[in-house]
Amino acid sequence: MASTNPARGMRDFLPADVRKRNYVIGIIKQVYESYGFEPLETPSVENLETLMGKYGDEGNQLVFKILKRGEKLDLANATTESDLSDLALRYDLTVPLARVVANNKNDLPKFFKRYQIQPVWRADRPARGRFREFYQCDVDCIGSESLVVEAEIISAASHILSKLGFKDFEVRINHRGLLGKMVADAGIENETDALVALDKLDKIGAEGVTKELVERGISEASADNFLAAVNGNTSNDDLDAVLAMCSELRVKIDPSLARGLSYYTGTIMEIVLTDGDFKGSIGGGGRYDGLIGMFGKEQIPACGFSLGLERILVVMEERGMFPPEIAESTPADVMVTIWSEETIADSLKLANELRSQGLRVTLYPEPDKLGKQFKYADQIKVPFVCILGESELAENKVTVKNLKTGEQTLCPTSEISAIILGG
Amino acid sequence: MASTNPARGMRDFLPADVRKRNYVIGIIKQVYESYGFEPLETPSVENLETLMGKYGDEGNQLVFKILKRGEKLDLANATTESDLSDLALRYDLTVPLARVVANNKNDLPKFFKRYQIQPVWRADRPARGRFREFYQCDVDCIGSESLVVEAEIISAASHILSKLGFKDFEVRINHRGLLGKMVADAGIENETDALVALDKLDKIGAEGVTKELVERGISEASADNFLAAVNGNTSNDDLDAVLAMCSELRVKIDPSLARGLSYYTGTIMEIVLTDGDFKGSIGGGGRYDGLIGMFGKEQIPACGFSLGLERILVVMEERGMFPPEIAESTPADVMVTIWSEETIADSLKLANELRSQGLRVTLYPEPDKLGKQFKYADQIKVPFVCILGESELAENKVTVKNLKTGEQTLCPTSEISAIILGG
Repeated sequence: MASTNPARGMRDFLPADVRKRNYVIGIIKQVYESYGFEPLETPSVENLETLMGKYGDEGNQLVFKILKRGEKLDLANATTESDLSDLALRYDLTVPLARVVANNKNDLPKFFKRYQIQPVWRADRPARGRFREFYQCDVDCIGSESLVVEAEIISAASHILSKLGFKDFEVRINHRGLLGKMVADAGIENETDALVALDKLDKIGAEGVTKELVERGISEASADNFLAAVNGNTSNDDLDAVLAMCSELRVKIDPSLARGLSYYTGTIMEIVLTDGDFKGSIGGGGRYDGLIGMFGKEQIPACGFSLGLERILVVMEERGMFPPEIAESTPADVMVTIWSEETIADSLKLANELRSQGLRVTLYPEPDKLGKQFKYADQIKVPFVCILGESELAENKVTVKNLKTGEQTLCPTSEISAIILGG
Repeated sequence: MASTNPARGMRDFLPADVRKRNYVIGIIKQVYESYGFEPLETPSVENLETLMGKYGDEGNQLVFKILKRGEKLDLANATTESDLSDLALRYDLTVPLARVVANNKNDLPKFFKRYQIQPVWRADRPARGRFREFYQCDVDCIGSESLVVEAEIISAASHILSKLGFKDFEVRINHRGLLGKMVADAGIENETDALVALDKLDKIGAEGVTKELVERGISEASADNFLAAVNGNTSNDDLDAVLAMCSELRVKIDPSLARGLSYYTGTIMEIVLTDGDFKGSIGGGGRYDGLIGMFGKEQIPACGFSLGLERILVVMEERGMFPPEIAESTPADVMVTIWSEETIADSLKLANELRSQGLRVTLYPEPDKLGKQFKYADQIKVPFVCILGESELAENKVTVKNLKTGEQTLCPTSEISAIILGG
């Protein structure tokens, strides 16, 4: 018999998980909208050629490719992966955005401020906290070179984390122009190699980065010079301007910040948690003034930021940051029981009346012993149960039982919602 | 240069589209939750073997398969599609639910009432209103054989359509047991073939169905007998019981209703619109008491319903059914302008103050001629603009302009939200 587990690196979200995810997504949406960002959604599946060549070699390897279908799949003559595949799963939300902007230039406003909260897929080796399907929460502003964009994006991301209850976050910024100069000054030719290695500084330390640089064919002297420059004091007008605009937020320049993706051209940013067991990055972004030009005739400046929903959820769970109404939510305010085959219609009617009063009502789906019905009510943790037995029906009333206190009230239907909402 | 269109049969949703989609999804969620259904989410990607053999031959052909990766992909020795693929995109939400139920038996309540609103993918030939990525809005109750489940599901779906503003809908029900008997009585051996053909009755008429039955190797006499039985008067205890429980809803028995999917075992249901240019099915479902047993040791009864979001959206658009606050929504309540390089910090501060008052505020991202800033405000249709120029700053006030009336007010920051929310 086939496994019933989700596919490797993928997850099922049971109701309690979905409620927590939706709570966090709801706050992210609300804050992004308060900054004037508009929602965008793109398809999960893109043409393979849209994604290839945008994420560097490591990224290309991690794209999930979709098999051609029907006559298009010519297995006998296929010699490469691209003979077999024409489509792929979205790898991030930035490249699809660039495609959409190039495709809808005349329908979009001069500055297009959009947010997008959707899953992406990467064929990475699954590990603790690393999944093959995960959500990104992106915010981008298209069309302006102004550093006001960077400031607003940093402000919005900080605002979200505050609203979720985080207190130990810090924004680190750097600049690809500054990094590029350090790479060149150190005599390193392949900038991408240098930055991919530097991006791992937090994880593997200076020695590890040096080792990786040398493995990538860079001389030890160049590697040392590069790391010395990174640790030195450097200044950049753009970064100073961003700092000045964010004077009320926790932002600092980090010359070692690299960011893995190859499409950044200016400011790069990362938000990190600084305290306790869950230090580390929970989001990042930067300016990418060249990406949209890869899809259209025109270069259009752009800057964005992506919050990592999965990491935020893990830390909030570990730190117990969910409000009680989310952490202890129940599927319904009240359960209506069914006394017998003959009273099914009465129970259906009662359930609908209570719904029309604004209550969330679950109906026990079959006539059953009352004890079993109460056991189920306990299992799903509903706080109240309505009993509509023969004596209640005779009196045209309902017995409402508070499962926490055990208190029972016999009352007309019209009074039930007051008891439940007051309880 | 690569195409910037979305992949064939896929769609980008610009902000106005997303708002409409979210409005409908919001109502669907709210009603399902008022019936005690809980949210579930499953991965977009399933193991290929989870999906194969669940949807019949036509369904199998339409599953998007994902190429194996790295060493697992042995192109030289591959002779079939299953040598090339180990994963696939979700084809519906029912099979993943069955897998989840079998996988989490001990963590789920005795009756698991869940809703799930997520995209599914089918490699169908794209046509008007038929896409390769589309949302399904499913509601299912697992664990009870009671027809109360059918009644509650029909009630919830009807409630959703009413709340969205539909008046011309009708629920049609039939029973697989009844159909199975008709198929057998007509001397037809392959029930699936007969039902797949019958399912097209609305589209291709009785002659078309007969033709298809004959093409599938069924004698013309059997085909005629089958269609005569379908048009005859038939009765079924389950259907009568469902009708009785739904006496306040528009439900009728339709002996020709077949539903394409092969996993149904009992009641089958469809909701159709009956008036005007947009007649036809906008959702369907049924009882499938055998599906979960394909994944676990145990047979567990189940019944569910799926609303077709895309079709609902098309009809609501054509009929102008979106409320004005959705149809004419704007990205922000107010736009803050930037007067000059020197006043950027003041505008950033004003924008944040207005956000803390609960307003959605977009900041023009760079210092620019006021005329250009107003032109942009018009383009994105914000109703108010705040001007913070030298004279305003000198007075510690802000000019608020109502773009509809042209009215301008010079006032302190604290009074702005009253003007905007009152306007």
